[in-house]
Amino acid sequence: MSEQASWWLASIQQPDIAAQSQAEQRQLQLTKPTGALGDLEQIAIQLASLQGTVHPQILKPWITIFAGDHGVVEENISAYPQAVTRQMLQNFASGGAAISVIAKHHQAQLQVIDCGTVGEPYQYTGVERHCIRSGTANFVQQVAMTEQECIAAMQLGKESVDLARAKAADIFIAGEMGIGNTCSASALASLLLNESAEQLTGVGTGINHQQLAHKVSVINQAVKLHAAHVADDALKILAAVGGLEIAAMTGAYLRCAQIGMPIVVDGFISSVAALCAVRIQPQTRAWMLFGHQSAEYGHQRILKELDAQPILKMNLRLGEGSGAGSALSMIQLACVLHNQMATFAEAAVSGDKVAD
Amino acid sequence: MSEQASWWLASIQQPDIAAQSQAEQRQLQLTKPTGALGDLEQIAIQLASLQGTVHPQILKPWITIFAGDHGVVEENISAYPQAVTRQMLQNFASGGAAISVIAKHHQAQLQVIDCGTVGEPYQYTGVERHCIRSGTANFVQQVAMTEQECIAAMQLGKESVDLARAKAADIFIAGEMGIGNTCSASALASLLLNESAEQLTGVGTGINHQQLAHKVSVINQAVKLHAAHVADDALKILAAVGGLEIAAMTGAYLRCAQIGMPIVVDGFISSVAALCAVRIQPQTRAWMLFGHQSAEYGHQRILKELDAQPILKMNLRLGEGSGAGSALSMIQLACVLHNQMATFAEAAVSGDKVAD
Repeated sequence: MSEQASWWLASIQQPDIAAQSQAEQRQLQLTKPTGALGDLEQIAIQLASLQGTVHPQILKPWITIFAGDHGVVEENISAYPQAVTRQMLQNFASGGAAISVIAKHHQAQLQVIDCGTVGEPYQYTGVERHCIRSGTANFVQQVAMTEQECIAAMQLGKESVDLARAKAADIFIAGEMGIGNTCSASALASLLLNESAEQLTGVGTGINHQQLAHKVSVINQAVKLHAAHVADDALKILAAVGGLEIAAMTGAYLRCAQIGMPIVVDGFISSVAALCAVRIQPQTRAWMLFGHQSAEYGHQRILKELDAQPILKMNLRLGEGSGAGSALSMIQLACVLHNQMATFAEAAVSGDKVAD
Repeated sequence: MSEQASWWLASIQQPDIAAQSQAEQRQLQLTKPTGALGDLEQIAIQLASLQGTVHPQILKPWITIFAGDHGVVEENISAYPQAVTRQMLQNFASGGAAISVIAKHHQAQLQVIDCGTVGEPYQYTGVERHCIRSGTANFVQQVAMTEQECIAAMQLGKESVDLARAKAADIFIAGEMGIGNTCSASALASLLLNESAEQLTGVGTGINHQQLAHKVSVINQAVKLHAAHVADDALKILAAVGGLEIAAMTGAYLRCAQIGMPIVVDGFISSVAALCAVRIQPQTRAWMLFGHQSAEYGHQRILKELDAQPILKMNLRLGEGSGAGSALSMIQLACVLHNQMATFAEAAVSGDKVAD
């Protein structure tokens, strides 16, 4: 593979340790007991390190939804029919989906990219249609996609981030849509962590107990088929059991870390894509904030693997970037508090504790 | 006591069950899997019941900070000197405190009421000074305040809520400031729950391990002194070991429930005030949302007693209404999603699951 083609191996930017240290110092001087704003303090400090300034701020959030269909739906592992993937693409673009409402609420740019869904060619205003392939293959029987297709999908993620940067975005959220994609994400997690699917598989959009057992057995079957040939190569794993939209997110995260764009990771599927990116380049992790702890079973395990503290714990399990988008509120508030609160000196408040 | 004087026993409004039911129905029709927006759905549904409309919204949040000093600081139970109470009052009014920044961020009205702090008379712009008494008495030695003083403090809370209503506020947050007030709140909790202080006492603004043990012993001493004469009378308990600002919050919560104003309860101290209000009139509980799970040890126990699911879990432990104020972001987002998302029919998305 040529040097140019493997852009995802290019170097990752380093967070600004000096700005982080300045932000930590500032937090100690603000009129509150040390640490009393909890996670809001840590968010501001991390963003300071990522934006390279003691006064981080979020003015132009960017959200890209990546969509793709999944051949594994043949195995009846999802609660909803495959047609919903495309129906939701229209809903994203026309403003009716949760993430559309969230994007508008935050005045965030919303980009909608179809990486490869099943069906006839179409044109929907506001949806960028690519067709790397018409959905993945059923990964219980063969690889979901070739490595070339996987790389093409990653490229879509890269291009989205480059566009976001060109438009002066200051934080990047990747959301996903794809009926069957929790199944793909669980299979990815199982291979990446070398753990059985039982602890990594949830009900997705809402299957019943019996269907969940079936979903687990489908994933274990796929893992058995692919484990030997993919070994611990994240890119091969992604091609074997991933999705086009998951590969695109992986590419987006890697690109964010290369150009120094802070990321807010969404829920289970996004976190698995984040884990893929971190396995490809571990330093990518530093650029990630985690929007929420999803109700999808397995997410907690992925967050633990990534040593991630999610911002919200509100039992969301929608995907689309909705958890990360919701967390934008708290990230913006963290910045506003960090920047606008008075210091003890400014407010003439005693910062000295009574002697211990 | 005259009928007029005991206003806090006047009848509580009933939430609108029809509006709640309509909101529940609407949530089922929105383009997402059932329940996928988790707590955001429940917040919108509860607010629908409190505002009496299928389309709840928060346009005019109101925040009142109640301050008071505590005689129990003589026992050396706080990390900061008592002078900080008044210093922070100025900081609230001049815009430098966390809650000031949060209020501005949400375009919320911020009212600052000194219910009784220690020191000379003063005038600060933006602070309404009352002096029911110059801080409470040391409740290890005597009652913190008389019942008349306690009722006068509750009246300040009532008047604040009436003002908020007159100014068309649609949600009410009470915050507090008072060096020593976690000690008072833990003593209240211990008497209200009839449980030992050990499980209800935390480090407040940041005392060390040894100081915490001392604080617990101070509270146990106070409980021993007052338990017999207060029995399970919440008003007597409030007067015995409460604070002027805690009594004011209790009065405010009761008044909110009487006039049908939704409440966002803040952290540990506020939740103890909420528990006092619920003990005085149990139906008050229906009007409460809970902004966050505080890092202050003991808060979880109070939330459990109130059967409360906090919105945020971000390790905040500042008070001032800062957790409830932060949660406003999520409450507003919950309303926006509830009101603006498309239904399955509007978006032509299949809401039918694949047959189970």
